[in-house]
Amino acid sequence: VTEDEVVAAIGALCKPESSHGRRIVLGIGDDAALWRPSRSHLSAISSDMLVEGVDFTDSLMGLEDAGWRAMAANVSDLAAMGARPVLATVAFGVARERGAREMLECYRGIAAAAQRWHLSIAGGDLSRAPVLTLAITVVGEVRASNAKRRDGAHPGDVLAVTGPLGNARAGFELARDAKLNVGRELRAQALSAFRRPEARVAEGRFLAASRNVRALMDCSDGLSTDVARLVAASRCGAAIETVPVADAARAVAQMRDENPERFALGAGEDFELIVAVRAASFRHLALRYRAHFGRDLIRIGTLVAQPGITWNGAPLERSGWDHFADGA
Amino acid sequence: VTEDEVVAAIGALCKPESSHGRRIVLGIGDDAALWRPSRSHLSAISSDMLVEGVDFTDSLMGLEDAGWRAMAANVSDLAAMGARPVLATVAFGVARERGAREMLECYRGIAAAAQRWHLSIAGGDLSRAPVLTLAITVVGEVRASNAKRRDGAHPGDVLAVTGPLGNARAGFELARDAKLNVGRELRAQALSAFRRPEARVAEGRFLAASRNVRALMDCSDGLSTDVARLVAASRCGAAIETVPVADAARAVAQMRDENPERFALGAGEDFELIVAVRAASFRHLALRYRAHFGRDLIRIGTLVAQPGITWNGAPLERSGWDHFADGA
Repeated sequence: VTEDEVVAAIGALCKPESSHGRRIVLGIGDDAALWRPSRSHLSAISSDMLVEGVDFTDSLMGLEDAGWRAMAANVSDLAAMGARPVLATVAFGVARERGAREMLECYRGIAAAAQRWHLSIAGGDLSRAPVLTLAITVVGEVRASNAKRRDGAHPGDVLAVTGPLGNARAGFELARDAKLNVGRELRAQALSAFRRPEARVAEGRFLAASRNVRALMDCSDGLSTDVARLVAASRCGAAIETVPVADAARAVAQMRDENPERFALGAGEDFELIVAVRAASFRHLALRYRAHFGRDLIRIGTLVAQPGITWNGAPLERSGWDHFADGA
Repeated sequence: VTEDEVVAAIGALCKPESSHGRRIVLGIGDDAALWRPSRSHLSAISSDMLVEGVDFTDSLMGLEDAGWRAMAANVSDLAAMGARPVLATVAFGVARERGAREMLECYRGIAAAAQRWHLSIAGGDLSRAPVLTLAITVVGEVRASNAKRRDGAHPGDVLAVTGPLGNARAGFELARDAKLNVGRELRAQALSAFRRPEARVAEGRFLAASRNVRALMDCSDGLSTDVARLVAASRCGAAIETVPVADAARAVAQMRDENPERFALGAGEDFELIVAVRAASFRHLALRYRAHFGRDLIRIGTLVAQPGITWNGAPLERSGWDHFADGA
């Protein structure tokens, strides 16, 4: 069973309510849910659960970092809709022996991230749990005409990402294996990407405001997995030509005799955005993007009619994180 | 450390964002958070986490019931603001050995509850966890002029509840102790209240629409605990005169040689609403309530200026559920 299959089974159980269904613009299966509380704007809602020992480990990052990271993952889902974060609710399960003090340490990271992305923490819940468990829900808003989903890509569109990939995975490997040595600066970059990831809120809002952006999502489970989701939703395929590899990721992959591009393809949680852009408009959008952010919107390939993903012409298997795959 | 102290410490960490703070109408500390996405309506948001072995146990209820109950608890928080439920997100932590099938069983209860209260399940998350962990966030909407908080009660107001208390606790005791015998009908009532609780959405909307209702909250942690929260928020006190005890609760308490009123005062999760009503208007409101619902709005006492709670004139200690109290 894969995570996507479980999500599909859940979707079948949860038919939208007919009476209110028309106000739910977008339900299960995208980065965030959308509903329309007012005429001009949509609310975007996204939830994530992080569990100690699964999604984070004491030995790899402090609790304050874990809190930041949980918020970043959620805010990234809003960024992927082009939404501006408004508020978060935070539900906490905490083990008896760790107690309230450790939870407050985690909360400091949550509060710092809330400040970073200008959202208010508006409520939550507390429970006992066997291990530290964090469930965050974020709510944002987006002008109805700007909201970008993952199902709007067309064959011929340019596929691009907002930055090089693999930094967070490199940071994870470096935190886990003290013998890996990539130099001080790359190490700091990678650990920061792993422990204090950025969510591309400004980038998401910039891209969502363009009529020529047809699909937008965040890269949280690995490029190969997430592009597979985008093309499945858009009923097309993708030909990936270039995989932009972060310097630290290249260094870690090389030290471990792995192909750096393959390392980056399977690397999740960088929270870069994946975007499908009308081909004729890509150059202009990329120039405006560069002028605005001082970084490149990196072209990685093309959307094609044939389902599935190829990389340099050969079929690409999904290699990202799946909570339910047998190998996970 | 008590749960309320932990919540206060969290509140201090989470100052509302100044730029958007004005749109957050109500943050941490009430049943649900409120923000204003449109001119006339507020969004109400509430989150709960339920953890296997803490909030529910396999031996006491099936997973489908646990799913229903988790939704009911969340929807009740919306009812307590006078809001109409719109959507829910559901984050799931699931143990490897239980797998996807058990999660889907739980989801059936969630979906049934969603249908019961006309809300759409709009998204969520899946993770591995040591035990089944459920975090639900619900979003509802309420006309801005109707939204009712817990901090609006005044000395002199009538304190009332929407139904007799203790059924869910009686159901918990009956599920736990096979030797308790209260007769088939009371047993069925109590187990149903414990496993398939109702949320008072229609009642909440009815009460919230009245200008004479000054405070509203749900009774989820026990009357003594929840009234203490209401009077603390409203900076007054309460004199409780009558505690309406559900028949099954009275039977269970008597079999165990406990005072039935005290049993009901400490009984949570009935999800009845607690309401403060302008004294001069109570009789009229209660008549309209009875005509509308065919049940009584039950007067239990009076709000007073003196802080704290008395029961029949004597100080009442909190006896409800607290996740962080030493005795919990």
